[in-house]
Amino acid sequence: MTREELFENIKKKQSFLCVGLDTDVNKIPEFMFDKYEGDYIYEFNKQIIDATAKYCVAYKPNLAFYESLGLQGWDVLERTVDYIRTNYPDMFLIADAKRGDIGNTSAMYARTFFGAMDFDSVTVAPYMGEDSVSPFLTYEGKWVTLLALTSNKGAFDFQFMKDAETGDTLYQKVLKTSKNWGNADNMMYVVGATKADMLSDIREIIPDNFLLVPGIGAQGGSLEEVVKHGMNSQCGLLVNSSRAIIYAANDETFAEAAAREAKKVQEQMAGFLKAAGMI
Amino acid sequence: MTREELFENIKKKQSFLCVGLDTDVNKIPEFMFDKYEGDYIYEFNKQIIDATAKYCVAYKPNLAFYESLGLQGWDVLERTVDYIRTNYPDMFLIADAKRGDIGNTSAMYARTFFGAMDFDSVTVAPYMGEDSVSPFLTYEGKWVTLLALTSNKGAFDFQFMKDAETGDTLYQKVLKTSKNWGNADNMMYVVGATKADMLSDIREIIPDNFLLVPGIGAQGGSLEEVVKHGMNSQCGLLVNSSRAIIYAANDETFAEAAAREAKKVQEQMAGFLKAAGMI
Repeated sequence: MTREELFENIKKKQSFLCVGLDTDVNKIPEFMFDKYEGDYIYEFNKQIIDATAKYCVAYKPNLAFYESLGLQGWDVLERTVDYIRTNYPDMFLIADAKRGDIGNTSAMYARTFFGAMDFDSVTVAPYMGEDSVSPFLTYEGKWVTLLALTSNKGAFDFQFMKDAETGDTLYQKVLKTSKNWGNADNMMYVVGATKADMLSDIREIIPDNFLLVPGIGAQGGSLEEVVKHGMNSQCGLLVNSSRAIIYAANDETFAEAAAREAKKVQEQMAGFLKAAGMI
Repeated sequence: MTREELFENIKKKQSFLCVGLDTDVNKIPEFMFDKYEGDYIYEFNKQIIDATAKYCVAYKPNLAFYESLGLQGWDVLERTVDYIRTNYPDMFLIADAKRGDIGNTSAMYARTFFGAMDFDSVTVAPYMGEDSVSPFLTYEGKWVTLLALTSNKGAFDFQFMKDAETGDTLYQKVLKTSKNWGNADNMMYVVGATKADMLSDIREIIPDNFLLVPGIGAQGGSLEEVVKHGMNSQCGLLVNSSRAIIYAANDETFAEAAAREAKKVQEQMAGFLKAAGMI
């Protein structure tokens, strides 16, 4: 998907919501186990997707949750991707995998997510530098979503270390260095909503790139702050919410509850897009 | 496995070799496809393992190579781990996965590699800090292998950035900070053989921890240099070789050729262990 297409979808849907499919077997409503026996994880995903697709432009399956189920999990992941591609072809699909390894290995990961499966993007960790990231950039229309400033407490361990030469923090150096590995049409960045006040500085370094912003909802970040400091002229934001949407209820009403929560966020987003004159 | 058990195995085998199972469908000898049809990847692994088990103390499957094959790859990985556990129970098994995410997600990855599968350790990237690493440290007898100084060219992009406060490089800060998250009995570090001259400095920071050293063989690092600068009183080294061993030949002799290459490295290692008075 191109940046223009993504922006068109955002305007059409009046939303820049990404729904995180962190499907946890311990959090799925219990009635699902009886009703769908062996296939309750896939069924949960399917119903969440059908309920929320109207209100979002992207889905982000978190690989850890599928891998932890072994073969079954991998199978559910593949079928979930196929289901979205078939029924909602305009969705932007992010494999939240946090990969990154030496060149020949990263090339294998790229083959997994862009070849074997049809994701639009994969999250990549920057620690190993350019040759761990560039193999993901060789696929036309596919994107790297690089970790810059994460939403967790551990972000403070290394990401704010100051460069003796330039005074930049590590996450700023990651932005400045990596933006030359690709461009705003194939690189987006993870910036946590819990650190929204740093978004203005980040926008000075990467004015045009899309940002994938986790941390709204369960992690406590504010959508208003994210928009205020992070939105650019083509929106430039995909704001993710996982647990607050997909586990909004734990009974037969889970899909409706997910739709209601997603709609609530979408309506807020429509307000921000209108205020910015984009719709 | 405890650190003492690992050291005992090293002395018994007179080897600190780790064989990397980067099994690439494009590099498997062609005759295997006809002979083993659907199961040639597993058969290749099995024959490589049987041929090299005498000469090594650890195996390191590279997850990327299995994931790129989807369901089939995941199945081969699980069966390879089972095969090693059943037939060579003393092997140290490292999932080379370069994972690392927010706490609840890292906990899921830990469940995958230490619960669903029976690995001894998993490689983890440090960028997201303590809460992305600590969930892996809650399993008794299991290890984190944290990236510190990698063997690739991209290591120079961020790992050598100097801290304005302390003058430490990022990789030194990673070592100094993270060694307090666990201890020498559950944390080891990736340090590339291509940067062996930095091992003396690294040993000042972490005298006791095991190091997993890639970069011997195809990547050009020197075993002698690694031993000279990195060995400690309990060996403290697992030196990995992947391509130079498992693709030593591309015909019917591939297993013998792998054994020959592994034996060559083991004999060198025995010499170093003897010279150090450990055996």
